[in-house]
Amino acid sequence: MTSVREIRLKSRPRGLPTAENFEMATVDLPAPGAGEVQVKNLWMTVDPYMRGRMNDVKSYAPPFALGKVMDGGAIGEVTASNDPALKPGDLVQSGFGWREGFTAPAKSVQKLDPRGLPPQAFLGAAGMPGLTAYAGLLKVAALKDGDVVFVSGAAGAVGSMVVQIAKAKGHTVIGSAGGAEKVAFLKSIGADHAIDYKAEKDLSAALARVAPDGIDVYFDNVGGEHLEAALNSAKLFARFAICGMISMYNATEPPPGPRNLAQLIGKNIRMEGFIVSHHFGMMGQYAEELAGWVKSGKVTWKETVFEGIERAPDAFVGLFTGENLGKMLVKLA
Amino acid sequence: MTSVREIRLKSRPRGLPTAENFEMATVDLPAPGAGEVQVKNLWMTVDPYMRGRMNDVKSYAPPFALGKVMDGGAIGEVTASNDPALKPGDLVQSGFGWREGFTAPAKSVQKLDPRGLPPQAFLGAAGMPGLTAYAGLLKVAALKDGDVVFVSGAAGAVGSMVVQIAKAKGHTVIGSAGGAEKVAFLKSIGADHAIDYKAEKDLSAALARVAPDGIDVYFDNVGGEHLEAALNSAKLFARFAICGMISMYNATEPPPGPRNLAQLIGKNIRMEGFIVSHHFGMMGQYAEELAGWVKSGKVTWKETVFEGIERAPDAFVGLFTGENLGKMLVKLA
Repeated sequence: MTSVREIRLKSRPRGLPTAENFEMATVDLPAPGAGEVQVKNLWMTVDPYMRGRMNDVKSYAPPFALGKVMDGGAIGEVTASNDPALKPGDLVQSGFGWREGFTAPAKSVQKLDPRGLPPQAFLGAAGMPGLTAYAGLLKVAALKDGDVVFVSGAAGAVGSMVVQIAKAKGHTVIGSAGGAEKVAFLKSIGADHAIDYKAEKDLSAALARVAPDGIDVYFDNVGGEHLEAALNSAKLFARFAICGMISMYNATEPPPGPRNLAQLIGKNIRMEGFIVSHHFGMMGQYAEELAGWVKSGKVTWKETVFEGIERAPDAFVGLFTGENLGKMLVKLA
Repeated sequence: MTSVREIRLKSRPRGLPTAENFEMATVDLPAPGAGEVQVKNLWMTVDPYMRGRMNDVKSYAPPFALGKVMDGGAIGEVTASNDPALKPGDLVQSGFGWREGFTAPAKSVQKLDPRGLPPQAFLGAAGMPGLTAYAGLLKVAALKDGDVVFVSGAAGAVGSMVVQIAKAKGHTVIGSAGGAEKVAFLKSIGADHAIDYKAEKDLSAALARVAPDGIDVYFDNVGGEHLEAALNSAKLFARFAICGMISMYNATEPPPGPRNLAQLIGKNIRMEGFIVSHHFGMMGQYAEELAGWVKSGKVTWKETVFEGIERAPDAFVGLFTGENLGKMLVKLA
């Protein structure tokens, strides 16, 4: 492999990204120099947070640059190595973006021991999305015995792990997702109640129906109406872990926030935003708990797979149109 | 005193309350029975939170009842007593609402030792509004060295204490209030920067101008645009103590929340609503710190006083039209 394809940001989207915002290019890979490896990517991830980085605004991470490759994580296989720590055939995790392969310093990739799991699980349940669910529930929302947990975007990569981790820890869990297939999936992974938000006229009423005594924890992946419903159903001292607001990422005008935010006061609600990179220290503890849950069958996962790097933009846009059940992935080889 | 006047809720307001929502009545006070006292109120308080209780909605406290006296705190003097713990002339603090006097069990009032302060200070700086500022800053916002603090409604009973407590603890403080007189007051009590929100077209720009490096703590008394500006200026890991949203209390349609709430995520902001009654345990610690600050001249306060119970509705409405500098009070005798 000396020539690989990559996807670059061609123009900044206004609203939902389209094919015109991306361009594919073929580049030659240099042979690895001293201390370098060449890697063939097997799997790459697309995640909702990437939408924010397509905008030219200051945030926790710099925006993607026009004409440059889209950033993101991948799992690959070493094809050539000039570093004794890695040899051809080794699996590695890396963050060089939407491309079929790359040449880079060996120190800039992480050797992956799949511990019996499929390698792509480390882009989902056993990787950042799984840790996001774990840290958001345990640390940000400070989950405690008896909590009733509500999670939006519950059929997605993060949401489906929130459902299962909360169930594994013995909680009552309500998940919201769009459509009958996703609702059936939520039931199959143990959700006590599943709300099909597309079928409900009044989300607050739907939540009140399944949680008549209210909710203690809300794990927000969606924002907007879901957040408003969660505020209406929140009990005294409820904790909201704000992980994402996917309903807003493609808005062309800044959408208004929830109309009932003043409920924070009387109910003493704590609402805390977070990004997983501040919680990497919990990865060891999470991996250990996850291994036990996988073994006992308490945690499982689904993948939605697009094949070929040329499909990466479609996979990405599919995150916002609800095409994924579980983790959205692109299979590269 | 056997006959006193009281103010009752006549009808529920829609929007800003008017004179028609209140009615004054004269009632005869029974002579105190065994274990009872009769009290002549000297001062009563009006506070923004009372507006919420005029609505017929479920909240942390039950709504005021139609035809019944408006609830609230007062400072009075015992005029007759059938309990050995209290004698005529004793000052007492009570919560029997907007009335000139009452007869009640001695156990239902608290004897007040003014410790050299004017008695009405215990309805303001030395009472609930002061403790609200103290607990909101120290506990809810978890104030720490070097924090830049922004407070809205900064010339009010709570806000002016937030400014002074944060200054007494060595912080950079930005206060927002409406009009030149209030801005001058904020400067006089030590605010590093004072924003006249009525004179600013773009509150976010005004805040960015005086806090170019951003804010660590936001103490919210106002909501709406102020909250939006605070989100825009928030640093990573900023903490927001949500105490009140006075800009919304008289809205006839639920007002939309901030359009930039998704900033909670990338900035890892914690936003926590609170009511002071959950923090009464801090009163002893606060009273001690306050005594030192008053002695050293670090903390002072202003009062806006309406005279006579018939003016109580005007005093109350004045809270929402910005008529008060510092604590709004009604002097009853």
